[in-house]
Amino acid sequence: MVIVGAGLAGSLLSVYFAKRGIEADVYERRPDMRKSDAGGGKSINLALSTRGIHALKEVGLYDEIRKISIPMYGRKLHAPDGTLSFQRYGKDDTEYINAVSRAELNRSLMDLSESITGRKIRFNSRCTGIDFAGKVVSFTDDQTGENFSVEAEAVIATDGATSAVRMEMMKIPRFNFAQVYENYGYKELTIPSGSDGGFLMEKNALHIWPRGSYMLIALPNLEGSFTCTLFLPFDKVLGGENSLEHLEERNNLIPFFERNFPDALALMPDLEEQYYSHPTGTLMTVKCYPWTFGDVVTLLGDSAHAIVPFFGQGMNAAFEDCTVLNELIGVHGAEWKKVFAEYQAIRKPNTDAIADLAQENFIEMRDLVADPRFQFKKKIEAELFKRHPDIFIPKYSMVTFLRVPYSEALKRGKIQESILDKLSEGTHALEEIDWSNASALVEQSLTKMEIPKN
Amino acid sequence: MVIVGAGLAGSLLSVYFAKRGIEADVYERRPDMRKSDAGGGKSINLALSTRGIHALKEVGLYDEIRKISIPMYGRKLHAPDGTLSFQRYGKDDTEYINAVSRAELNRSLMDLSESITGRKIRFNSRCTGIDFAGKVVSFTDDQTGENFSVEAEAVIATDGATSAVRMEMMKIPRFNFAQVYENYGYKELTIPSGSDGGFLMEKNALHIWPRGSYMLIALPNLEGSFTCTLFLPFDKVLGGENSLEHLEERNNLIPFFERNFPDALALMPDLEEQYYSHPTGTLMTVKCYPWTFGDVVTLLGDSAHAIVPFFGQGMNAAFEDCTVLNELIGVHGAEWKKVFAEYQAIRKPNTDAIADLAQENFIEMRDLVADPRFQFKKKIEAELFKRHPDIFIPKYSMVTFLRVPYSEALKRGKIQESILDKLSEGTHALEEIDWSNASALVEQSLTKMEIPKN
Repeated sequence: MVIVGAGLAGSLLSVYFAKRGIEADVYERRPDMRKSDAGGGKSINLALSTRGIHALKEVGLYDEIRKISIPMYGRKLHAPDGTLSFQRYGKDDTEYINAVSRAELNRSLMDLSESITGRKIRFNSRCTGIDFAGKVVSFTDDQTGENFSVEAEAVIATDGATSAVRMEMMKIPRFNFAQVYENYGYKELTIPSGSDGGFLMEKNALHIWPRGSYMLIALPNLEGSFTCTLFLPFDKVLGGENSLEHLEERNNLIPFFERNFPDALALMPDLEEQYYSHPTGTLMTVKCYPWTFGDVVTLLGDSAHAIVPFFGQGMNAAFEDCTVLNELIGVHGAEWKKVFAEYQAIRKPNTDAIADLAQENFIEMRDLVADPRFQFKKKIEAELFKRHPDIFIPKYSMVTFLRVPYSEALKRGKIQESILDKLSEGTHALEEIDWSNASALVEQSLTKMEIPKN
Repeated sequence: MVIVGAGLAGSLLSVYFAKRGIEADVYERRPDMRKSDAGGGKSINLALSTRGIHALKEVGLYDEIRKISIPMYGRKLHAPDGTLSFQRYGKDDTEYINAVSRAELNRSLMDLSESITGRKIRFNSRCTGIDFAGKVVSFTDDQTGENFSVEAEAVIATDGATSAVRMEMMKIPRFNFAQVYENYGYKELTIPSGSDGGFLMEKNALHIWPRGSYMLIALPNLEGSFTCTLFLPFDKVLGGENSLEHLEERNNLIPFFERNFPDALALMPDLEEQYYSHPTGTLMTVKCYPWTFGDVVTLLGDSAHAIVPFFGQGMNAAFEDCTVLNELIGVHGAEWKKVFAEYQAIRKPNTDAIADLAQENFIEMRDLVADPRFQFKKKIEAELFKRHPDIFIPKYSMVTFLRVPYSEALKRGKIQESILDKLSEGTHALEEIDWSNASALVEQSLTKMEIPKN
């Protein structure tokens, strides 16, 4: 087998294969990141949650990865006047998401891949083409300039949102494809650790400065710093003073932060230097279908379904792809045509759903979290969850703490939202709600859930 | 200037440029079709209408092209029992669309391009890359294997639905792109001319055998034959016995035609031979944005907005792109950045609209045309058009006989459709309609149109 891409999904998948005794070689376009600093323009922090953890556990890697993770129990909201408030993610401290450095996680997975598979990842190998009939993958070694090709029993493309393998699949008739960019971009910034090496804000939380049409967020790093991400509309036409275009003018940066994020500004003395030396990130959703071509190739992870980062599910979804692919190998063995066909049929509706959920969650994070009505609905939601723990499960929990299919989470989430809308109408107090009526509504609208074991 | 692609749009555009004294070289991936028979897997017939004619007139080519066109005044419907009926396209015989052979039209345009510009089209030249910073286009000569590159003041991509230039643009950040295939495919078949060289069916019509979820159509050719196109769902799952998959089994073909198109079958004694030797076509819609990159490149025609063929507007829309680009050169001269920016801003909403209109028209052609309620609404529409000739113009006419922006045609078409729905409700006779009430409704819902001169 040939795996194209030694990112998070490719490295993990190689271990899944090794555990099944399937020989797979991994080819990676970039130089070995364990020997250099090349981040590749990707985001710095990730939120590892149940689906990702489940996959890591399946191949015995979780204990290693847990060591480099920081639990985040909820959202810490920063109001414009500096007031802080906390919104818990789960029902208690047993439910949390994990901040983890993309680079450290990837390095660990590469190490584990090489030691478990006994095979070295081949770096600097840029995929330049696929002969679908002959099952031959062509590469160029970007260090030596050498061209080489490899015969493969089958090819798994884990080469990310701008996948070279997917580019080759565009030549196949009836390949549907869409890449859509948000009108928003982002800047990553760092809040350093304190002089004693400690955290300058609450460590075990995901910090959000929600400002309606834009936001700043921050995730903790092991060494005491925070990685902040500022999400803003690109263009003045859309965002006016609150746009990346407006901030291109150096004089506008500090006033913008003073107006919006004074507490964060106070923790970033070198903000200006950081801001103007860091690249601006883009946000893209990729959808395509089919993901597979016969028994020759399948896409996996971002190459098949890149999403926006606002639900923290990009990596988790990619790892869940691995879980499903591995299950199907368990059923069909190396009958790749069957395995690939069932894999894409199972995963496509779910990755379409998480793409939508991730878009929705941007609005929640940047805007709704600060809205009293939203907060009240969250309280009703928690109460309904208590009363109907296997029927009414908060959407966030279905996505983050359970391995319920994303499409199910999306569908039930919509029904639940309409229930919450009804119950919250015209009242601000839980005591005023008629709970027996509410329970009847829940039982009419929703069936009991089947919850896959974590 | 470099024009990539000597199809219909590229050849025409070179003439527009020549008329303005702009030097442009045209590069084409395929061999010279004037010396060979290579059709390139594209459809055989086209329907040339007002927008396309306007462009040809602007550069003085229409008189030549008219000679190879056959007027079609309306739809000739073939019922399953062989009964024929006629639905006129326009208000009278002065309004018609023109059947024209793609290959002949393209050959003529190539001849005219070379004679008017005094420059030879360079064939066998496959675009392999663009250096956007250096404004250099790379090609490989597929006959000699030679690689060469050309410096360009600017590049116009007229290289069709699978554009190589657009592939290069996918590397540009924030390039939005979607290609979506229909679940339908098509087979082209020929009804030969009679033994005396005459037409075996009505010459001056577009023939349709509407069968609900699928259809057969036929357009006349100069030499007395008809080119038929059978549109069917690909898969049995979708179409059952009426699917391309079902017809893969040779025994199923003739019974399918006997059941659905007995009169056409009678005119195609070699149907089976034709069917199984011809390729199956696919139907794709391409949308992308931006079309342009600074003053370096712009997409034009199918490379920017490939659509399904059901409104007969693919070529006409591409020619209208040329008209608009030429107008803007008239305003801004060779300030390509301005020209390209305004061109894409003007054209994008209109080509999005014709993409939607083309999808709608598939349903109209294969299904609605045979529906008595649709036919009654057509009569009401004609009457309203007579009463309000500059307010209520049939959608088909706006698209086909006028140069009204497609987006306007789409928008007004929807409003008009709802008016027709209201007026046709509960009645089957024009006499029963309250026309003063109808007029009031029209005048409330729609404003007077500004109609660009043809």
